[in-house]
Amino acid sequence: MTHRQILLTSRPVGIPQPEHFTLVESPLPVIGAGEVLVRNDFLSVDPAMRGWVNAAANYSEPVPIGGVMRSFAVGTVVESRCDEYAEGEQVLGEFGWQEFAAGLPAMITRRLPATGLSPSLALGVLGLTGVTAWFGLTEVIAPREGDTVVVSTAAGAVGSVAGQLARLRGCRTVGITGGPEKVALCLDEFGFDAAVDYRSPTFAADLAAACPNGVDGYFDNTAGFITDTVLALVNPRARIAVCGTASIETWDPWPSGPRVERHLLTKRARMEGFLFFDFEHRLDEALDALTPLVRGGDLRYREEFLDGLEAAPDAIAGLYRSENLGKRLIRLGPPSH
Amino acid sequence: MTHRQILLTSRPVGIPQPEHFTLVESPLPVIGAGEVLVRNDFLSVDPAMRGWVNAAANYSEPVPIGGVMRSFAVGTVVESRCDEYAEGEQVLGEFGWQEFAAGLPAMITRRLPATGLSPSLALGVLGLTGVTAWFGLTEVIAPREGDTVVVSTAAGAVGSVAGQLARLRGCRTVGITGGPEKVALCLDEFGFDAAVDYRSPTFAADLAAACPNGVDGYFDNTAGFITDTVLALVNPRARIAVCGTASIETWDPWPSGPRVERHLLTKRARMEGFLFFDFEHRLDEALDALTPLVRGGDLRYREEFLDGLEAAPDAIAGLYRSENLGKRLIRLGPPSH
Repeated sequence: MTHRQILLTSRPVGIPQPEHFTLVESPLPVIGAGEVLVRNDFLSVDPAMRGWVNAAANYSEPVPIGGVMRSFAVGTVVESRCDEYAEGEQVLGEFGWQEFAAGLPAMITRRLPATGLSPSLALGVLGLTGVTAWFGLTEVIAPREGDTVVVSTAAGAVGSVAGQLARLRGCRTVGITGGPEKVALCLDEFGFDAAVDYRSPTFAADLAAACPNGVDGYFDNTAGFITDTVLALVNPRARIAVCGTASIETWDPWPSGPRVERHLLTKRARMEGFLFFDFEHRLDEALDALTPLVRGGDLRYREEFLDGLEAAPDAIAGLYRSENLGKRLIRLGPPSH
Repeated sequence: MTHRQILLTSRPVGIPQPEHFTLVESPLPVIGAGEVLVRNDFLSVDPAMRGWVNAAANYSEPVPIGGVMRSFAVGTVVESRCDEYAEGEQVLGEFGWQEFAAGLPAMITRRLPATGLSPSLALGVLGLTGVTAWFGLTEVIAPREGDTVVVSTAAGAVGSVAGQLARLRGCRTVGITGGPEKVALCLDEFGFDAAVDYRSPTFAADLAAACPNGVDGYFDNTAGFITDTVLALVNPRARIAVCGTASIETWDPWPSGPRVERHLLTKRARMEGFLFFDFEHRLDEALDALTPLVRGGDLRYREEFLDGLEAAPDAIAGLYRSENLGKRLIRLGPPSH
């Protein structure tokens, strides 16, 4: 018996491209006593995976050359020789870009609750991206009613949730995104009060016009010139949550930009980085808040499915080309998923 | 009767120089009913005054051309036609660079308590600079015992207090300053555990060696390449308090530097501007903590006196030339002060 895996076969500088990966056919692992075998159903594709394969210092060790590409995934326990998990259970973990994952139960992050919703949501609005948006918005930005909250990559998996959560708290929400299709998505689907296109030559003026009372909170997924443009508009005591740096192709060499110190000082503003992992121990708190919003239709989301492992090698690069509409996932297994 | 004043007579770009000011002889104001006349004894010279005269957006309206240069001062009530203040009382306010100030009692910020210490300290370690250091350190950085706290302009009026307060809380303190004389002052007078010279060609390596456990807190008075060097060393959850931008000569044109977003994100660090004014309502809390430390000799400070209004026009520029050792003040009036 064999299964297929995506290996990282060379180290990218910047955004990983198809040539950095290889699809291989490997023996299906045989589990030992105390172990489980998980069949992956959905593999996650996230902007942060760029950092996981780069050699530059990051918050985790880089994926080794020749190793299976690291990724979050949801799957089904198909064989169990442990007490903790039974066959048929749906689980989430860093199972990697492969069809099957085997190991001790510790490889499983959590069992998926029976929500009646698609298990794929545990990788998106009810998982990494939704929970990231929840904590970035509620803990780092902590907006008050009437605040203006700006979100970059506003049509994306994290940004769209951050914007909707801000709106639900009574904020004026302004989305920044690329192209008319995503501007329309922000307005019509995700309910932003305004949405501006960063590719427009009038972007800075458009953003200023969309924020007549300045900017109190900024959920930043891009860094770069988008952030520079927002910073010029911040109000006293503004909170800037740094969640991603999607607009920066590489940090080697380290890019330059307008200095932030004077904005932060004269506006007594705060710029703060945060990661999902820092809040992982509070996952239930976020899911308890997000699940009823999703179920009731108050929190909209989009999923985009790529079918089959063959789609994986170009999937991260595609995110950085902004070609996805919604949380990007690779769907494996039978078409019933 | 006349008195002397320093007027701002042209608008500087960047650091104000002597040619931007003029010393004039003006009629001594005659106070009306309900007003007071204050004789200035000490005028403050602070790096922030650069921002007060520039046209660029700031936290206060720029000093008008032709107006008396704004400054904090301590003085003595020499004539009172109001109920609130009596002749002979020592008071602090934004009395400006002039020998006398007249107006309603509202022009007075506060009455100086009888501490037995020099009233000039109300402009320094027991005033603007000390209180700035107190809140920046205790509220923005909020260090824990054992943290490494780095301070820029460590021999200066704010930096020296910030460093000592961090040491009193059990932190490892590392001062950044310019030149061997100030390095020695940091070590011998202000008790920093290490002090490094930013003018040295080995500055980056020296700083890294002085921070073997990384940097948990950074009290930043300079911005610029000093800050860039510190940022590369921050630990997860580091707190960077942006208090001043002394190393940046002008913000018009806006200077560039290495982008901060990636440091903040991967280290989940926070960079936050703050101003004395935001904490002014909590002044007593800071003074209650600082006064016994000064009196008991646990908190050392340096004052540098320039004599006479003639010294004022070059006094701010001198701060930016780093020529002062300690809190810079202009001393007026009888030599007994």
